[in-house]
Parts: sequence; C-alpha cells; structure tokens
Amino acid sequence: MARDPTVRYFAGTDRDRAAFEAGIKLGSILHQYIGVPLTRKNVTSLERAIEAAARVQPLVEDVTVRIDRRRLRLRGPYRYGILTEDLLHVEVTVRVGRSKAVGMLRYVPKLDYPLMYLKEIR
Amino acid sequence: MARDPTVRYFAGTDRDRAAFEAGIKLGSILHQYIGVPLTRKNVTSLERAIEAAARVQPLVEDVTVRIDRRRLRLRGPYRYGILTEDLLHVEVTVRVGRSKAVGMLRYVPKLDYPLMYLKEIR
Amino acid sequence: MARDPTVRYFAGTDRDRAAFEAGIKLGSILHQYIGVPLTRKNVTSLERAIEAAARVQPLVEDVTVRIDRRRLRLRGPYRYGILTEDLLHVEVTVRVGRSKAVGMLRYVPKLDYPLMYLKEIR
Amino acid sequence: MARDPTVRYFAGTDRDRAAFEAGIKLGSILHQYIGVPLTRKNVTSLERAIEAAARVQPLVEDVTVRIDRRRLRLRGPYRYGILTEDLLHVEVTVRVGRSKAVGMLRYVPKLDYPLMYLKEIR
Repeated sequence: MARDPTVRYFAGTDRDRAAFEAGIKLGSILHQYIGVPLTRKNVTSLERAIEAAARVQPLVEDVTVRIDRRRLRLRGPYRYGILTEDLLHVEVTVRVGRSKAVGMLRYVPKLDYPLMYLKEIR
Repeated sequence: MARDPTVRYFAGTDRDRAAFEAGIKLGSILHQYIGVPLTRKNVTSLERAIEAAARVQPLVEDVTVRIDRRRLRLRGPYRYGILTEDLLHVEVTVRVGRSKAVGMLRYVPKLDYPLMYLKEIR
Repeated sequence: MARDPTVRYFAGTDRDRAAFEAGIKLGSILHQYIGVPLTRKNVTSLERAIEAAARVQPLVEDVTVRIDRRRLRLRGPYRYGILTEDLLHVEVTVRVGRSKAVGMLRYVPKLDYPLMYLKEIR
Repeated sequence: MARDPTVRYFAGTDRDRAAFEAGIKLGSILHQYIGVPLTRKNVTSLERAIEAAARVQPLVEDVTVRIDRRRLRLRGPYRYGILTEDLLHVEVTVRVGRSKAVGMLRYVPKLDYPLMYLKEIR
C-alpha cells in the first residue's frame, strides 16, 4: 500500500488495519440493510446487491452474503417480513498489504446473538 | 379490500389511503438505502434490489427505480461514492380498492431539492 | 400554501398531500432508525432525537415518539438489543393548507403487525 | 475477557479484536444515521443520541460524536438538510482485555473523503 494516501493517518500495522476494515464492512452491512422488506421473492436480489455494494468498497477482496430463508418470518396480513440481524450470514475478506482478515457475521444459536468475529487474521 | 383486516384502523377513504401508502413507500426507500456504497459496477443490481423489495410491500402495483449515473460522484482515494438522495428517481404506483396513487421521488434542479410528490391521485 | 414552490408538482388536493406527507414521515422514521443499539439507558435520548429530527421536516405540526420499554428485548452475552419495528409508537400530525392528517405507526397485537395508518384525515 | 463466551469464536489476539470492534462501531454509526433530517435545531440531540446508542454496545469505553454545523447544508424550499458522511466526526475507544483501539471517522479535506482510521492501537 505504498502509494495509498490514507496510510499516513493510520496507527498500527497492516494487520491492525485489516482487522479494522473487516469490522467496518460488517458493521456497515448490518446497519445499512436491516429493515429492507423481504419475502422469498426478493431474497436473492438483495443478497447479490449487498455483495456487489461491498465489493466496491476499499480493500475488499471477497464477500459472500446469505440470507437465511428458513428463519425468515413472514407476518401480518400482508405476509412479508424485513431483513433482521439474525437472518444475515456474511463473510468478508479484506487485504491490506500482505495482511489479511476474514470477518464473519452470523447468528450463533448458542449465544442467541448475531455475532461479528474474526474468523482469520494474519 | 373488503377482507383486509387493516381497514378498520383507517380514517378516510381509499383515496386517502392510496396517497398515504405512496408516501410510506417513498419515505421508506429514501431512508433505507441512502448510504449504500456505489460505483457504476453495482448501480444496476441496487436498482433491481430496491424495486424487488418495494414489490413485496402491501398494495404496491408497480415501481420503477433509477439511479442517476451521471450525477454519481466517485471520490476520495478509492474512487467510489454512496447513494445520496439526489441520485434516486423512484416512481411507485399504489392501488387501494378502486383508488390509485402514483408517487414520485426525483431531484428537481429548479428547487435544488429531492422532491417527493403525488404525480397522480384518483 | 400559495407561495410553496413545490405545489405545482402535486396532483390532487391539500388533503391528498396531507395523507401523502404523513406516510412519508412514518416510512422515513421506520427505515431510518431500525437497528439502533438499544437498552433502557438510551431509549429516552433516542425518542427525543427522532422527534426532533421529524420536526425539522416540511409540514410537520406535531410528532410523538415512544419506544416500548416492556417489549424491548435485551439479548446475547452483552445484554442489549436494537430498535425493531415492533417497538416504535409514532403519531405524526401534518398540516397542508387547511387540511390535516394524523398518521400512526404502532404494533397491533391482533394483527401481529407494526401497522401504519391514518388516524385522522380532513 | 476470560468469561466472555464470544472469545472462542475469535481468531487472533485481543489487539486484533480491539481494531475489529473499533471498525464495527464506526461502520455502524455511519450507515445507521446517514439520512437523518437535520437543521441546527436538532443537531445536538442527534449527537447525544448517537453517543448514547454507541455506549450500550459491547466493549465501548468512550465515544464522542460531533456533527459539523458549518458544513451542514440547508437546502430546498424548506431549508433543511440531512446527515451526510462528511458531517460526522466520531472518535470511539474500544477496550478488549488489556488492548485498546481508538477509531476515528472524520472528513479529511486533503483527501476529500470521510476517512475511518485507527488513531491509536495497542
């Protein structure tokens, strides 16, 4: 990243930044898309749009988004739902120089919590 | 809408509700998607995802979403932008009984404002 | 609203616009704030911030926002929740000329649905 | 964090996680609040609400949010604006075990970009 003009603003190492950027991507996705109206009809187009938008962001090497169709809850008189934090399964790979971070967002039943964590960092 | 169980909660006429629902849809779209990372690469997938999500909502008969590629501003060291309110061009048609409302959201240069208005109501 | 430069873009009557604008405000609030981290500690500041932001919008005469503390679900190892659509209770009054619309958003247990409806229109 | 049940999901060190969590918080704030209607009247209540919501999240030790009143652009016939990415100035401190990360989000004029960076990491 010798020519990246943002480098001078950063404390720490490439590895620190990789972890930081993986966090940014996951936090961004969760808070941007929660609330989108959802049925089985539009779940695929939403998955692809979230992935495509993540890929235009800095340093993203790969991203996979899945929305849990089985947990999707259709409700009310109009039988539709919204994207909730428990439905999102995101894996994002960020590369900074020779460092790499893989961040995950997924609902962990044992914790009853949509956990964001570092799956890999080096 | 004789069997729609929500009807008993509503004051006013089908026409009132059509106008109201058109407003809901436009306000929802603006505030849901503003901030999505954007370049020319993902603009089409985002347009389609917004349309698909709008169609699963109650009473929507038709919806068209266009994002203004010419006004899209790529910026900063990573040359990407985000969806802003000035880029969105949305036309949504809502039907309630025999009434119909067409709501528009578009940037109006003369007002320097992303205006939401009723294009048609009957 | 004789001098409002947006008037020429609108089809319909002041009453139609009042209904439309009430819908915009409710749709906007729901999709803007869903996902905000929430415990009992910050629920009041969030209510007030949503109200204050709604009041700076066009044509809003009054707005009340309540977040249902009893239904707020703290979860996971860190014991916090997020603002969900079922927690919001919003009443917004919009005036257009001599017309007035009161829009409501509230969870209706009978429908198991966060319903937006016109409580009053004239 | 010996008793934190999420630890077993994480690769890397406490320092890695501190950087990751700082990124999550900044990404979340940016994408949650962009689009909130804004004039000078509600800017303070919004700053306080964003801070209060950040503080209920895991591992946050401190957070300061400022919205740039001078850059706030009131526009259109109704003379109000929205929260944009360039107006936000956020500093968040995250602690994980004995590690600490300070993340910043601020508009950097030289880059014409709202940069998120690690101000401190140890």
